[in-house]
Amino acid sequence: MAKKTTSEKLGTIGERKAIDLVKSILSPGNEDIAVGPGDDCAAIKINDNYIVITTDMASEKTHFPPNITPYQIGWHIVAINLSDLAAKGAKPLGVVIAAGLPDSYDVKFLEDMFEGMNSCALTYDTAIIGGDMKSHDCITLTGTAIGKVPQSEFMSRLGAKKGDLLCVTGTIGNAGVGYYSLKHKQVPENRAAFVGLFEPKPKLAEGMALAKTGVVTSCMDISDGLANSLYQLAELNRVGFDLFFDDIPIAPKAFELAEKLSIPIEDLTIYFGGDYELVVTIKSDSWEVAREAVRAAGAKLSQIGIVTEKRELNLIKEGSKEILKNRGFEHFKWVD
Amino acid sequence: MAKKTTSEKLGTIGERKAIDLVKSILSPGNEDIAVGPGDDCAAIKINDNYIVITTDMASEKTHFPPNITPYQIGWHIVAINLSDLAAKGAKPLGVVIAAGLPDSYDVKFLEDMFEGMNSCALTYDTAIIGGDMKSHDCITLTGTAIGKVPQSEFMSRLGAKKGDLLCVTGTIGNAGVGYYSLKHKQVPENRAAFVGLFEPKPKLAEGMALAKTGVVTSCMDISDGLANSLYQLAELNRVGFDLFFDDIPIAPKAFELAEKLSIPIEDLTIYFGGDYELVVTIKSDSWEVAREAVRAAGAKLSQIGIVTEKRELNLIKEGSKEILKNRGFEHFKWVD
Repeated sequence: MAKKTTSEKLGTIGERKAIDLVKSILSPGNEDIAVGPGDDCAAIKINDNYIVITTDMASEKTHFPPNITPYQIGWHIVAINLSDLAAKGAKPLGVVIAAGLPDSYDVKFLEDMFEGMNSCALTYDTAIIGGDMKSHDCITLTGTAIGKVPQSEFMSRLGAKKGDLLCVTGTIGNAGVGYYSLKHKQVPENRAAFVGLFEPKPKLAEGMALAKTGVVTSCMDISDGLANSLYQLAELNRVGFDLFFDDIPIAPKAFELAEKLSIPIEDLTIYFGGDYELVVTIKSDSWEVAREAVRAAGAKLSQIGIVTEKRELNLIKEGSKEILKNRGFEHFKWVD
Repeated sequence: MAKKTTSEKLGTIGERKAIDLVKSILSPGNEDIAVGPGDDCAAIKINDNYIVITTDMASEKTHFPPNITPYQIGWHIVAINLSDLAAKGAKPLGVVIAAGLPDSYDVKFLEDMFEGMNSCALTYDTAIIGGDMKSHDCITLTGTAIGKVPQSEFMSRLGAKKGDLLCVTGTIGNAGVGYYSLKHKQVPENRAAFVGLFEPKPKLAEGMALAKTGVVTSCMDISDGLANSLYQLAELNRVGFDLFFDDIPIAPKAFELAEKLSIPIEDLTIYFGGDYELVVTIKSDSWEVAREAVRAAGAKLSQIGIVTEKRELNLIKEGSKEILKNRGFEHFKWVD
């Protein structure tokens, strides 16, 4: 990216352009860096493995609505980082936390928050192994997770090819139901979804199972929303997608709430982030292998589309086709 | 720590108590976690190596005085993390950065800051390999560095024994000169020290050289100040120290400025943080080995004291002995 943008403000250029700019500044590193900025995780060669590492910051401004509990704040920051490991097929080795906290907060808040972090780490057979704590004006948490995956099993974002099957794990729409329930004060009826929004479950077992099959051509998590994630995969892989809306495994609650609030069902599902499922492309002859692997891991894989040569993203719903919107969650332009 | 403190505020209990509380909550993790919270880095066993990881958060409130440039903000966050790797004898593998930035900032700020990060990483033969960028009310940066060290070379904070030699790398007082120059508007006369405060040089070559000797019994960086670091080492190792003030390699500028401002020289040096040298304890018969190793790495090691059995920290200056104060930089109680 040219330097001509430098008189602009960060709030004007948006997150993706800012990231592109940063990537243009950074040096590539040595030959041990197998994957640098731009994937869910960076990857470093160590013997036959990759050590993968990912970092995510969350703060009051962008991530913590008033209803979230300290325990959930803690769970969330660990879960979203583990989700990035899941997308690479990695097994977690540990999580470190940098916490910036206001002096005025109760010690009880700290306790509950770290209990949430510890609980999430334990649930996924890992631990909080270090960190940093600082006084800060507004609560700010950065989690960093590291994991390990055999080089041969690493699932990159790069590799989707025409004809590959587009698949997703689990169910879509739980986070959207949580968010819109909150926004429209429908919380009591949707407590489970509300928990889903604040206590996402990283798909580590699914990621490791898929990685071992060797039939995945690309993978990422859909924390930015399914539509937005597909746009990212399409751009990276120079491909398009036909997305079959009717095949997307949507939570029944999402249909109920969309109807009740007169919101398009797409807004609660494919155009909303926070579900932390994995989207994968699979070799066209390997559907059974992938599905069985995920089933054996106790979860579900659904085919929801196909990779196309033409760089166009189509949403096919009840037989009619429209262009999928490139909408989802983007910071620096966060409006809601 | 008992839960009775939970009605208190974080600003009242201070950073160390908060960290102790967090440590009491966290589960230890599996047998691959060789070092958990409480050292400069966590360490995970991978074959014959440890993968070490450290994270540090810096924000406008606690770390960025008005005079610092965006380039220096970037350099600083990378350098302080690499310093933690240095203290373990590790070789850096990569750094990830989570950046929370106000929408109102210029794109030029982002560019300059990442150029500082990149430049620091390159200087120490590593790279910024990934990250996260978010909108934030006040600039907040979290760096996380990972490195690798053979298990046999890892330098723990734990291991100092009675009779060991207490040593420090480099020169003490540059950061203090920078800070007090700024505070008392003596900047033009002390520009170099000022740069030293904002662009610390992590002692990676020194750390790796010392690690290979096998004669180091404990090590940490002195970012919290020499006195404070010695209190941390003493507590962990259940030992004491005799610190010979006259043997401390103090920057001549520190003496000059202390005199000019009528500040005790101790305040600019042992009671002030930010120098990012390494303090090590060395087996009593191995002084030559350690000194030669650091010299071969192009730097200097000085013996400044001795490890004692009695859990008392003495400052010996011009033949007279006083108790070393446990003073240094502590967040949540930051007054200056």
